[in-house]
Amino acid sequence: METVTKNTVNGFKSEEIVGTINAIQDNPEIAKFEFRVRNKWITGGHNQAMVKDFYGGCQEDTSREKEWVFDNGEPPILLGNNEGANPVEYLLSALSGCMTTTMVLHAAARGIEIDSIDSKFDGMIDVQGFLGLNDQVRNGYQQIMITFDIKGDLTEEQKQELIGFAYNSPVFDVVTNGTNVKVGLAS
Amino acid sequence: METVTKNTVNGFKSEEIVGTINAIQDNPEIAKFEFRVRNKWITGGHNQAMVKDFYGGCQEDTSREKEWVFDNGEPPILLGNNEGANPVEYLLSALSGCMTTTMVLHAAARGIEIDSIDSKFDGMIDVQGFLGLNDQVRNGYQQIMITFDIKGDLTEEQKQELIGFAYNSPVFDVVTNGTNVKVGLAS
Repeated sequence: METVTKNTVNGFKSEEIVGTINAIQDNPEIAKFEFRVRNKWITGGHNQAMVKDFYGGCQEDTSREKEWVFDNGEPPILLGNNEGANPVEYLLSALSGCMTTTMVLHAAARGIEIDSIDSKFDGMIDVQGFLGLNDQVRNGYQQIMITFDIKGDLTEEQKQELIGFAYNSPVFDVVTNGTNVKVGLAS
Repeated sequence: METVTKNTVNGFKSEEIVGTINAIQDNPEIAKFEFRVRNKWITGGHNQAMVKDFYGGCQEDTSREKEWVFDNGEPPILLGNNEGANPVEYLLSALSGCMTTTMVLHAAARGIEIDSIDSKFDGMIDVQGFLGLNDQVRNGYQQIMITFDIKGDLTEEQKQELIGFAYNSPVFDVVTNGTNVKVGLAS
């Protein structure tokens, strides 16, 4: 009979999860984050998004020594040269990462161990909308279809519960419900 | 007096823009795309999103020789080790790339030349929602604030018109309006 509480579940340290939750419950201000991306247009459908600093836990983060640069590009059929993945692919990447992390973290907080997660995210889009060729066609994804392949000592019902955890994902919330966006020109 | 029609505007070849538009108007089926991401969980808040193949123009694309791999990670304050940008930062990257490309392409189609575009995207989020600590707090971004710094031989009114072009962005549509998402388990 196992009586030892495991220190690490799904790669998360249990004491760190508890510590974070307790800290936020003591002071909800530390839960407020501002994430930031800077973008520079290169030419045509090629631009670079840069990620480094953010605010959270009541302070500017200093944990990152270098910035990440993500090249947005387009394939030839969409008038580019494959300078990088295209923006709607980055959107699916964000959604996949966020749902996976959210699932694993909520499982860890409940002591549910997972062996592996592989997933696929397929997005259907009609570029007539984006190109302004048909008012009846929306600009964005018409549908996103997601399949999770979860392995572990888990019943089908438990796997469905894990998918339920993934619905807490911030990117899933934005992608399914939308959010408020303000756009302006630099003064 | 300039009478020569420019072949390239903002890095896009004018004849390629016209060719794409004519081809889609002849056969709208070629405007239907399916973009795909595969994701593999590594451990904790670290997972990898992989991008390569897609369907579009009535065929499987074969233009990409290798796949891109994007590491999703979390900073220490969110229980990770900065294994990569975090998913909500990838979301802002996608939004920045898509609005920039859309702006530049629609400008090119109208013959409007732009010298440079730099932009910043700031997203406000309260992680109490994501962590399930407060039902009154939404999981995703509460607000995204965007500032475009556009340079060129352009009036303030023309720059506002360029921002209007960016509203055709597919990622902007999804982020502001949400979309339909279906989630299932692999059989």
